[in-house]
Amino acid sequence: MGIVLVHTTVSLDGFIAGPGEDMDWVFELGSHVPAEIVQDVIVTTGAILAGRHSYDVGRRARRPEVSKPFGGAWSGPQFVLTHDPPDDERDPTIAFLSGDVETAIATARAAAGDRNVLVLGANVVDQCLEAGLVDEILIHLYPVLLGDGARLFGARRSRRIDLEPIAITRSGPLANLRYRVVR
Amino acid sequence: MGIVLVHTTVSLDGFIAGPGEDMDWVFELGSHVPAEIVQDVIVTTGAILAGRHSYDVGRRARRPEVSKPFGGAWSGPQFVLTHDPPDDERDPTIAFLSGDVETAIATARAAAGDRNVLVLGANVVDQCLEAGLVDEILIHLYPVLLGDGARLFGARRSRRIDLEPIAITRSGPLANLRYRVVR
Repeated sequence: MGIVLVHTTVSLDGFIAGPGEDMDWVFELGSHVPAEIVQDVIVTTGAILAGRHSYDVGRRARRPEVSKPFGGAWSGPQFVLTHDPPDDERDPTIAFLSGDVETAIATARAAAGDRNVLVLGANVVDQCLEAGLVDEILIHLYPVLLGDGARLFGARRSRRIDLEPIAITRSGPLANLRYRVVR
Repeated sequence: MGIVLVHTTVSLDGFIAGPGEDMDWVFELGSHVPAEIVQDVIVTTGAILAGRHSYDVGRRARRPEVSKPFGGAWSGPQFVLTHDPPDDERDPTIAFLSGDVETAIATARAAAGDRNVLVLGANVVDQCLEAGLVDEILIHLYPVLLGDGARLFGARRSRRIDLEPIAITRSGPLANLRYRVVR
């Protein structure tokens, strides 16, 4: 069975997007994420669970790198957790879920088969962490302080979560950090 | 002339202290900061500028590792930025400054001679970053999500700050990240 993986780029001060959903910093700094890491995530991902905000950002994005998962290099079932689904989505691989996060992960897991579920979006990541549903976290840490925007770990939690490093490597200006969530 | 260095341990979710000023996670995880990094910071530091909160935490701490800089392995002039200095501090190496952060850094620089000024405490770090006074940031990233507490980069800033990695290494469970602030 696959795992539930959080995979994202983050600024050193913890933002996954700058003010106004700015993602330009990721592209300005260039593609320093090792190809083998990207390829590994692409082939091991069986389904994506995204938050409504991530979905909207992707829909509005003018860059193809943002509008499709992995710039179009991955395809498969995508689930969007939202209480207010849009009625004009034409992509048959995108489905909207309005239940709790446990059910959403179970649905995504079933669709992923023996591959992984990739979780996108700070709010859904927070919900999954809170519910103890995350297995691994893979972060590409960018050398920038954005100062404002959307925080990856923005929600306050009463429970501490211990992690176990799987890999800590450098590629160009990035720190690539992969952790297992200790249960 | 020395530099202005921010040096701290941080949880993956960006906290330098957990709820209730908890620092136990640092000690539970053990001393994995490479001795050569600690030694380098100790010998290159000529003065410390701390916030009032950091000073209070040090004063109240029962652990000697927290109550003295580098557990007592460093000694030198320490400046505490506060508008409300205590009247019972007996340590002659500790002085209180109530002016702006630029003056405080200038005072600490003068005391540091040709060595570095070490800045401690999220609030003072934020003020120094905002004023463009920080030269380098050295972070030991701990594999834990504390969920709550005091954030290193908690203040929102309108200006983005670019960084240039000097060193990204792993030691045990830690990622040791050193960046130069791009001016």
